[in-house]
Parts: sequence; C-alpha cells; structure tokens
Amino acid sequence: MSDAGPIRISIQEIADHIQAEVIGDATQLIDHTAAMDNADLGSITYLKDKAYLQYLSETQASAVILKKDLAQQCPVTALVVDDPYVAYARVSQLFYPQPPVVPGIHESADISPEAQIADSAQVDAKAVIEAGVTIGENCMIGPGCILRAGCRIGDDTRLMGNVCIGLECEIGKRGLLHPGVVIGADGFGFANDKGQWVKIPQIGKVLIGDDVEIGANSCIDCGAVHDTKIGNGVKIDNLVQIGHNVVIGDHSIVVATAAIGGSSTIGSYCAIAGGTGLAGHLELCDGVTVTGMSMVSHSIHSPGVYSSGISVQETRQWRRNHARLHKLDKTIKELKDEIKSLKSERDKG
Amino acid sequence: MSDAGPIRISIQEIADHIQAEVIGDATQLIDHTAAMDNADLGSITYLKDKAYLQYLSETQASAVILKKDLAQQCPVTALVVDDPYVAYARVSQLFYPQPPVVPGIHESADISPEAQIADSAQVDAKAVIEAGVTIGENCMIGPGCILRAGCRIGDDTRLMGNVCIGLECEIGKRGLLHPGVVIGADGFGFANDKGQWVKIPQIGKVLIGDDVEIGANSCIDCGAVHDTKIGNGVKIDNLVQIGHNVVIGDHSIVVATAAIGGSSTIGSYCAIAGGTGLAGHLELCDGVTVTGMSMVSHSIHSPGVYSSGISVQETRQWRRNHARLHKLDKTIKELKDEIKSLKSERDKG
Amino acid sequence: MSDAGPIRISIQEIADHIQAEVIGDATQLIDHTAAMDNADLGSITYLKDKAYLQYLSETQASAVILKKDLAQQCPVTALVVDDPYVAYARVSQLFYPQPPVVPGIHESADISPEAQIADSAQVDAKAVIEAGVTIGENCMIGPGCILRAGCRIGDDTRLMGNVCIGLECEIGKRGLLHPGVVIGADGFGFANDKGQWVKIPQIGKVLIGDDVEIGANSCIDCGAVHDTKIGNGVKIDNLVQIGHNVVIGDHSIVVATAAIGGSSTIGSYCAIAGGTGLAGHLELCDGVTVTGMSMVSHSIHSPGVYSSGISVQETRQWRRNHARLHKLDKTIKELKDEIKSLKSERDKG
Repeated sequence: MSDAGPIRISIQEIADHIQAEVIGDATQLIDHTAAMDNADLGSITYLKDKAYLQYLSETQASAVILKKDLAQQCPVTALVVDDPYVAYARVSQLFYPQPPVVPGIHESADISPEAQIADSAQVDAKAVIEAGVTIGENCMIGPGCILRAGCRIGDDTRLMGNVCIGLECEIGKRGLLHPGVVIGADGFGFANDKGQWVKIPQIGKVLIGDDVEIGANSCIDCGAVHDTKIGNGVKIDNLVQIGHNVVIGDHSIVVATAAIGGSSTIGSYCAIAGGTGLAGHLELCDGVTVTGMSMVSHSIHSPGVYSSGISVQETRQWRRNHARLHKLDKTIKELKDEIKSLKSERDKG
Repeated sequence: MSDAGPIRISIQEIADHIQAEVIGDATQLIDHTAAMDNADLGSITYLKDKAYLQYLSETQASAVILKKDLAQQCPVTALVVDDPYVAYARVSQLFYPQPPVVPGIHESADISPEAQIADSAQVDAKAVIEAGVTIGENCMIGPGCILRAGCRIGDDTRLMGNVCIGLECEIGKRGLLHPGVVIGADGFGFANDKGQWVKIPQIGKVLIGDDVEIGANSCIDCGAVHDTKIGNGVKIDNLVQIGHNVVIGDHSIVVATAAIGGSSTIGSYCAIAGGTGLAGHLELCDGVTVTGMSMVSHSIHSPGVYSSGISVQETRQWRRNHARLHKLDKTIKELKDEIKSLKSERDKG
Repeated sequence: MSDAGPIRISIQEIADHIQAEVIGDATQLIDHTAAMDNADLGSITYLKDKAYLQYLSETQASAVILKKDLAQQCPVTALVVDDPYVAYARVSQLFYPQPPVVPGIHESADISPEAQIADSAQVDAKAVIEAGVTIGENCMIGPGCILRAGCRIGDDTRLMGNVCIGLECEIGKRGLLHPGVVIGADGFGFANDKGQWVKIPQIGKVLIGDDVEIGANSCIDCGAVHDTKIGNGVKIDNLVQIGHNVVIGDHSIVVATAAIGGSSTIGSYCAIAGGTGLAGHLELCDGVTVTGMSMVSHSIHSPGVYSSGISVQETRQWRRNHARLHKLDKTIKELKDEIKSLKSERDKG
C-alpha cells in the first residue's frame, strides 16, 4: 500500500535481483507490477502457468517474468526464471517495500524505565511497554500495542496496532504481527471438581521463531507448563486459534479461522487450511496438508493430503442426503441383511 | 441501550412514521417497545406472524403493529402495516436512537496535523489518527481507534472502541464498526520457494460502501493488487474473516465466524450463515443463501439455498454412521456387486 | 507465569491445603510443580491416571499427589487424595498465584469523574473509564481497556489489555477476561425490507456471573430486548462468539472458535467443544456435551454426548466417499429398488 510513484527500476536491475535471464531490451525502466490480465505500459507482470497464456500475445506490460518454454511467445522483454511466481513476489517486494521505520518513541507511549528499546526502533502512540521488555533493532511497535513484562521482540519485527504480547513471551526476527493479535493469553486449562472448574495456572510462555507472520485478531496461548512454540518461517492467517503447549514446525502455514487444540504438535512444511480444527494432544508429521473445514481427531504419521470437508448442494437435495446419513448404519445393515437373505435362499434353492 | 425514559411519542406520530393505518385511539403516549409475550402498559409491540397470536387477546400493550387480517382481533389500538417486523424496527429506532454525537476531539487523542476532521465529528480518548486521514460530518471515532495514514471515513459513521483502519482504506456513510474490527490488514499471500514462504506485498485497499455494519473483532483484509470491496447495505456479524480481493455485493449479509476466501466474489442479496466457509477464487451469483456451517468449494451460478452442514446425533449413534461414511464408497461398490451378481444369476437361471 | 523462585512450601502445608493424607516425610520444602514425565528435585507432581504410572518408580519429584491404590508404589512422599488432578490444580495455584493487584490509577488512564473505582483497584495505562462505571475491590483493569458508561465490574475481577465492556454491562466477582474480549457489542438484528436490512436497536445488556473466565478476542453480544446472561463459573475459550439474548447456565464451558446463535439457551454443566456451532433459538438442557466441530440445529432435551464432526481421511479416499454422500439418497433408493425387484421376482418364482 506504499506509494509506488517514485520507484523506477531498470529491467536489468530487476533481472539481477531475481537471477533471471533477459531476452529483449533490458534498459527500460519499470515503475510498478501488475496482474497478467490488465498489465499496462511501465509495468512488469508474470506468467505463473498456462492459464493466463491467452493474455501474453497482446500484453501491454513492459516486461514479463516467465518460464523458458514460453519465452519465445513473449512479445515484450522476457525475464526467464524457474519459478515465475516466486520471482514476482521478490520483484513486488522491490517496488512495494514495507514503510520505513522512523526511530524514536512517541511522547504518548507509556514506557517502563526498565525496558530496553533499541535506538533504531519506532514506538508509536499509546503503546504500553512494561518492565523488562527488550525491543531489538529496527522494530516497529504500532499504536496501542501492549508489551507485558519481560517479553522480547527480535530485530526488524513489526507489531501493527493493538497487539498484546504476554509476560515473558518471545518473538523472533523479521516478524510481522497484524492488529489485534494476542500472544500469551492463558491456555484453557481447568480441572473439574464435581462439576465446578478449578483453574490450572498457565505458567508457560510463547516462543515464536524468525520470519513469522500472524494475521489480525489471531491468538496463541501460553503454555500450561511447557512453552507454546512456533517455528521459523511459519505464516498464520487471521482469526486463528492456537492452544497451549502447541508446537508448530518451521515453514508451516495455518489459514484463517483454523484452530489447533492444546498440546498438539504440527510438523514442518505442513498446511492447515481455513476453518479446519485439530483436536488436542495430536501429532502431525512433516509435510501434512489438511484441506479446508476438516476435523483432525487422530494423529497423522504419513505426509500427504487429508480432508473431511463437505461441499454444498442445493438444500432440498442435501436434506435428503443428510437424512440418509443420519440413518446410514441402520440402512446399510438392512441392505446387507436383505442381500444375505436373497443369497441364502438362492443357495438353498 | 440508551435510556428510553424521557422519550414519549403519540401513537399517531408513530403511525405517521411507519405509514400505518390506526384502528383505535391514536392519542395515547407510548414510551417504550416490548416483545409480544411480555408487553406492558405504555408499550408498543408487534405481531410478526401467527406464532405469537395467542398473546394478542390478553396483551397489556398500548398498541400493536400487525397485518390487516389480524386487526379485528386486537383488543388495543392497532397499527396496520404490510410488514410488522420492519415497521417495528423503525419504531424501535425512534425510541432507542444511537447516542448523540458530541462534537470535539478528546485531549488524549493523538491527531496528525495533516488529518482533516469535520468540526461536527467526535473523537474519543486515546484515538490515534495519522496523516492524510479524512473524517466526515457527525462521525464518532471511539476510544482507542487507530486510523492509519490516508484512510477516509464517511459522514455519520461510527467506529466503536479499538477499531483499526488500514492505510488508505475507505469507509462509506452511516457505517457502524464494532470494537476490535480490523480493516485493511495484509491479505494472506505468499509464494512458495522450495518450501519457504516469500511474502507478496499486499498493495490494494479496502473500499466499504454506505450503511455497512461490521461486528466485533471481524477482519477484512486489503487487496493483493486490486481492492477488497464491500457493497452498500452489507451487514457483517462478529468474528468474520474476509480475505484479500473479495467483493461482496449490496445488501448481502455474513453471519458470525463465517470466512470468505481470498479473491471470491459474492453477489448482492446473498446470505452467508454462521460458521460457513467459502474457498478462494469462487463466484456466487446474486440471491444465494448458504446455511450454517457449510463449505462452499465451487462457484454457484443459480440463486437459491445451499447447504452441507450436518446436525448432531447422540455420539454413540453418530459414531456408527461416521464409520459407515468413512467406508461409503467401498460399501456401496460391494452392495452393487452383490446385487449385480444376484441379478446375473437370476438372468442365467 | 509469575516468578516461582521465592515460594517454598512444606509438604505438610500443601497436604493441609488439599486435605491430603501424607505417606512419607512431610517436612521437605517444595518450590515448584512439574509434569510427571520430567519432575525434578524440589518439585511436586501428580499421577492423574495409570497412563503415567511408568514414570512413578523412577520419579525425581520430592512429592507425588495420587490416589490411595497407587500410594504403595510411590518411591517418594505421597499425598493421597480422591482426585489428584483437582488437587494438583489447587497446589499449582499456591505456587503460581495471579500477579498481585497494585492499587492505584495510572496517570495516563482517562477516568470520568462520575466513575466509582474502589481504592484497592488497579487501573493501568491508557484505560478509558466512562461515566457511571463501578469498579469493585481489588480489580485489575489492564492497559487500553474501555469501560463504557454505566458498566459494573465485580470485586477481584481482572480485565487484561484492550478489553471492551459495553454500556451498562455487568461482570461478576473473580472474573478473568483476556485481551481483546468484547462484551456488549450490538447483537446481529435486522428486519428485511424488500431486500434491504433495517437495524433493530439492541437495547439489552450483558450480565455475567461470578468466577467467569473469557478467552482472548471472544465476543458476547448485548441482548436485543432481554439481556444476554452468562452464569456463574462459566469458562469460555478464545475467539468464541455468543449472540444476543443467549443464556448460559452455571459451570458450562465453551471451547475455542465455537459460536452460539442468538436467543439460544444452554443449561448448566454443559460443554460445547471447539469449532461447534449452535443455531439460534435453541434450548439445550443441563448436562449436554457437544463434541468438536459439530452443528446443533435442533434443541436437545436429554443430557448426554452429541456429535456430528467428521474426521479426516486421505483426500483421495475422502473424495470418493464425498461423491457417494452427495448422491446418497439416490443410491440408496436405487439399491432398495433393485433388492425389491429381486425379492418380488423370487416371490413370483
């Protein structure tokens, strides 16, 4: 959302940045990125796969990032790479860098004298920073953020507005936490004493690795005894719930409104799609993908893709299927019995 | 929740407001609204449908809003309209208006000198308003709200506490955003580079129409390249997730905890019920209703009602049905094979 | 998460606190609690059930809380109780008490002169407290909390950061509300006037009992006309949605990302598991448990356990079952017809 106006980069510079082979004129200046289907003069676009190939021959873009086998068909300058989408992401970061950090502490922020804040960090209006907090180099602490005692924020991490970080929690480097994120609230732990709930103090922390992004209003609870741990490079979408003691391995993603039950462990390179729920105390090995709106109620020990979501039908039709599903066991037993009886009579006959 | 005490309105004035025909004494003063089953003296109530007809003959209300065909049975003053529920909503707005806007900026708010705030607007304590923000006439910006640079708030819009509006986002007129709403956080967009996620800058805005209400802690992400757009008259409940580039047509509603995947388009006059999830890159035409806890994983091109939610059974019974469902394909194949074999033997015999 | 360092308690004192029988040396000092599988010297741990019995013989803990029948096998001091998990919860509370309340109002808080705040209460930085608010003894109002006019907070209740309490809402004693909780936002109530939505003013309050805990970013809407009511001892997890007019009985729990539709009533001692959704206008009697990711669309009048969640399979396998489910009614009709036809021929033969 930064103003891209003043940034102009030559195709050659872009190609060097993404290690692309240039076919065509490399001297032109590019000033923005664009989607394949509405790219205009001065823009660079990309061809992810053949779905958008129809737009290539008449593109108005000044340059196109694509794979080698399509370069011949490119009417403008081609930047040839192995993975055009990844290359596009890196080019886009060139044109739309994060807003710069402006070092300094806003006069309306409330800072404990016992907090350690790097001189290069930016602390915005109304932020509250308690004793023992450590904030690294080039951090940006947005308006209204609350950093509870003893928490630690790694270099180059940005907390957008109204983020709450609990006692002694740790966020790694280059993190990005969107507004309303709550890290380190109490896990949901109670013992049942003849019907009434007795709280079990939640004394663990949340430890978050480097390069982690967490979406708006998502929650990661502190551990009950051990710590809740989020690996490096993990990306978490909006309104996600992560329970106490959960461990998520490096480079996994969790999509919006998913919920991970307490004490579950998710491996590396996993993908938990939107709306999916994991029960507590499960283990998912590396490389597990769970598709949207599924329920995981047992551990998964083989990498692969797993599902249980049901897609919609017209309600009239769905109701009939639903009614059958509610009687499925009985119906199948009856059908089997009828067939058995027919067969037994046949055999007698 | 405003104090209704001092408001007293004659039945005639109410009838004029909702264009009702009065049968009975129109001079009485009404001072509150009430539900049909416990309406008392001085109240006005309504009869939505015949479900509550039993209460009509003995009602203590001073007036009842109802349809023509029931007016004869009304023992007190009747206000005859076509749609009693809509009329009741408008009468209720008379008795319980929104709290008045008190123009002025609280001394503890942090306001950029480069923001433009209408003199008639109210800005509450601890609000943070950055450069280039525009706030229209009679707006109410609640405590702790954060308005990022360049965002625009239309006339008569109210942001309750701790709402965050992202860079350059636009909210229309007469909007109502409840506490904790986050507009314009980054969409969830990454390219996968051999297992690691590379962020794609999210450079679109969120554009929200007039008369839009958004429930507590709901999130609407900014667009990736194009903008995320919410039409006029759209009503969004609490804890709803709306991904980047989503477009929602006029007068649609999205109920609590629903999630709309990125780049999906929802038509006008649609209803997405609670807990429902839409995958990304789908299109729903105008007039689509999706019932609760359903999953939409394909586009819908015909108006109508769609479902896939499954309602509970006793767990013992559900488990048996669930086990059958997990083997449904195999079981049906087997049943078909058995029948086929019986038929083939019959035909041979 | 409090620093347990200085707290040292003799086994005898602990035993007295939980009314346990001590077998072994009661004079040792304990300084922390630990899990059975990694308990070290100076710690007290517990044996909830026989699943962890393997660790007992070689435990390094200084004391173990367990049931009478296992006491003989305990190599260290045993504390015998009926319910070791409940006893452990109480012992853990001894070692990890909530941080102490530090009476006083932070200079950066914004307090109406018409608010009544007990001298023993703590009000943190950037809190906003409006006219007519009452805050009881020993309350802790965290940073950035917003207490709207007329709301009441009972003794010993703690609101963590950025909590919003709506107009005239009431929270009981010993409550604990985690960051981002929104109490008393408008319920989702509209009448449909030929396609357009007309707002119905939401004029009820939220009334919350004693000993209620509410997780991060959860929302409880105010009533439409009547009040929304949460009973004593209710525990609500993160990102939970509770609609207008809902009533929840004493000692029930609602787990993360569950949603309770408006005007539904849940009895006492109920458990609504994570991701589960209740439609509106339902009634659940006392003692109902609904397991995870289920949908409740009808009232439940018998205590018991209810489910409709579907657990994942490999996607390849699930897709085949899903395709069968979408045609279930048709397929079963066909199978029945085929069998009927076979039987009728048999009978003719």
